[in-house]
Amino acid sequence: MTPRSFVNGRAGDAIDARDRGLLYGDGLFETVLFVDGAAPLWLRHRARLESDAARLALPLPDVDAVFATAREACRGIARAAVRITLTRGVGERGYAPPAAPEPVWVVTATPAPTVPPDWYVHGIRVRCCGLRLATQPRLAGIKHLNRLEHVLARAEWNDPAVAEGLLGDAHGNAIGATAANLFVVRDGRLLTPALDECGVAGVTRADLLEGRDVGVVRLTWDEVMRADEVFLTSSLRGILPVNRIDDRAFAPGPVARALQAHWRERGLMEPAHG
Amino acid sequence: MTPRSFVNGRAGDAIDARDRGLLYGDGLFETVLFVDGAAPLWLRHRARLESDAARLALPLPDVDAVFATAREACRGIARAAVRITLTRGVGERGYAPPAAPEPVWVVTATPAPTVPPDWYVHGIRVRCCGLRLATQPRLAGIKHLNRLEHVLARAEWNDPAVAEGLLGDAHGNAIGATAANLFVVRDGRLLTPALDECGVAGVTRADLLEGRDVGVVRLTWDEVMRADEVFLTSSLRGILPVNRIDDRAFAPGPVARALQAHWRERGLMEPAHG
Repeated sequence: MTPRSFVNGRAGDAIDARDRGLLYGDGLFETVLFVDGAAPLWLRHRARLESDAARLALPLPDVDAVFATAREACRGIARAAVRITLTRGVGERGYAPPAAPEPVWVVTATPAPTVPPDWYVHGIRVRCCGLRLATQPRLAGIKHLNRLEHVLARAEWNDPAVAEGLLGDAHGNAIGATAANLFVVRDGRLLTPALDECGVAGVTRADLLEGRDVGVVRLTWDEVMRADEVFLTSSLRGILPVNRIDDRAFAPGPVARALQAHWRERGLMEPAHG
Repeated sequence: MTPRSFVNGRAGDAIDARDRGLLYGDGLFETVLFVDGAAPLWLRHRARLESDAARLALPLPDVDAVFATAREACRGIARAAVRITLTRGVGERGYAPPAAPEPVWVVTATPAPTVPPDWYVHGIRVRCCGLRLATQPRLAGIKHLNRLEHVLARAEWNDPAVAEGLLGDAHGNAIGATAANLFVVRDGRLLTPALDECGVAGVTRADLLEGRDVGVVRLTWDEVMRADEVFLTSSLRGILPVNRIDDRAFAPGPVARALQAHWRERGLMEPAHG
């Protein structure tokens, strides 16, 4: 059987209990969609990995080797979610980063989560989470391993009819969802929250921002609630229209539809069944 | 040789690469000083472990078994630093906590860091870190595994003459140090920062707060700089007077001296060599 888990490129599913990824969350990760062995957004994942690692002063491993391992891990899985975790490795006791860290990288592949086709057609129901994301410009946007806020937010509901939870900051701005980015259409304009104070800058979001007129703005909850369209984006699930935020109803609109069509053409979403 | 690392009570130094402690920093830790096999502050560590776990809805393992393992791990080490890490264990992909998590706990023992005796006598030099701790009441005070802020702050200097870095919040308040809590004496009154918005509530701090008249307050940098005494507290290092914050000089004072004497009586600090 094809190994599904690799540590530093070798088949394995154990890491050193003294790894700083465990001790301090000292590292970052990527979740990459592989379709029939190809990762259409790989270059964006790679760019984020490089940029996030630079911000944390994490040495990068050989990223080509990481990609080769990811392909190996998902062999035989038609649609795979490949998680790549990069840590600062084992160090001396204490927060001080080692002078010469030996980074550790873990690659694991699982079948990508199946999305009910209906979600793409009629949209998803979401809720507003009570937890407020903390403002930390030094970590904002980075897909790092310090994700307790997201864990606590995701623990706020277990109604399977609620597909996602929206997250905001302490100042009344919407930021995103627990595992997706947020876009709205208002007065014909596509908008998404600025992520310079908190939040995770997803690769699907990055893809949508390039070459399109998208406003990257502070977006209040009131502005979200009065939007003409609301949709979420994620590497694994693509473009998901929102049909309800708590008690407010929305209809999937033409902007989300056009982006979905584009996403399907690129092989990033399964064909609609609706 | 006595094993120094245990996972779930069994000798071992590897954890599952899918452990949520690594994936999301979904867990917490304690660093316990053992002196000749005894941990004078164990009950406080235990109380914090229980309280922090409750706040994160982490199931507790058998805490007596954890303690027995910690004692086993430090056998033969006169002064040991025992780290106890507790995670939510392995779960399905995604932030949602497992419905029935199987917690994982790791115990590792190392010799406690040696503190130059001069530090206790003449005090230590510290600096103010540029990083500002984010405000997050849901996580404030907890010794959780999301410690990237502390890693980044500790990476700000590598001058061995600087023993610690002070950390504040975004509102101009002092909070603590990268691996210690902060106390000041002003107008004869002992004060320490409130930790309801950020920071880690140390067990030595908890011990000092009990039965003493200590003001738990918002403390501005200006108030710290004009204090009569400044000292730091930590489980492993005890009571450390501060003799300099950046360019401002302080002298170790009578309050820190009295607490040091008390700490030595309880076996929590080595006898002074000065």
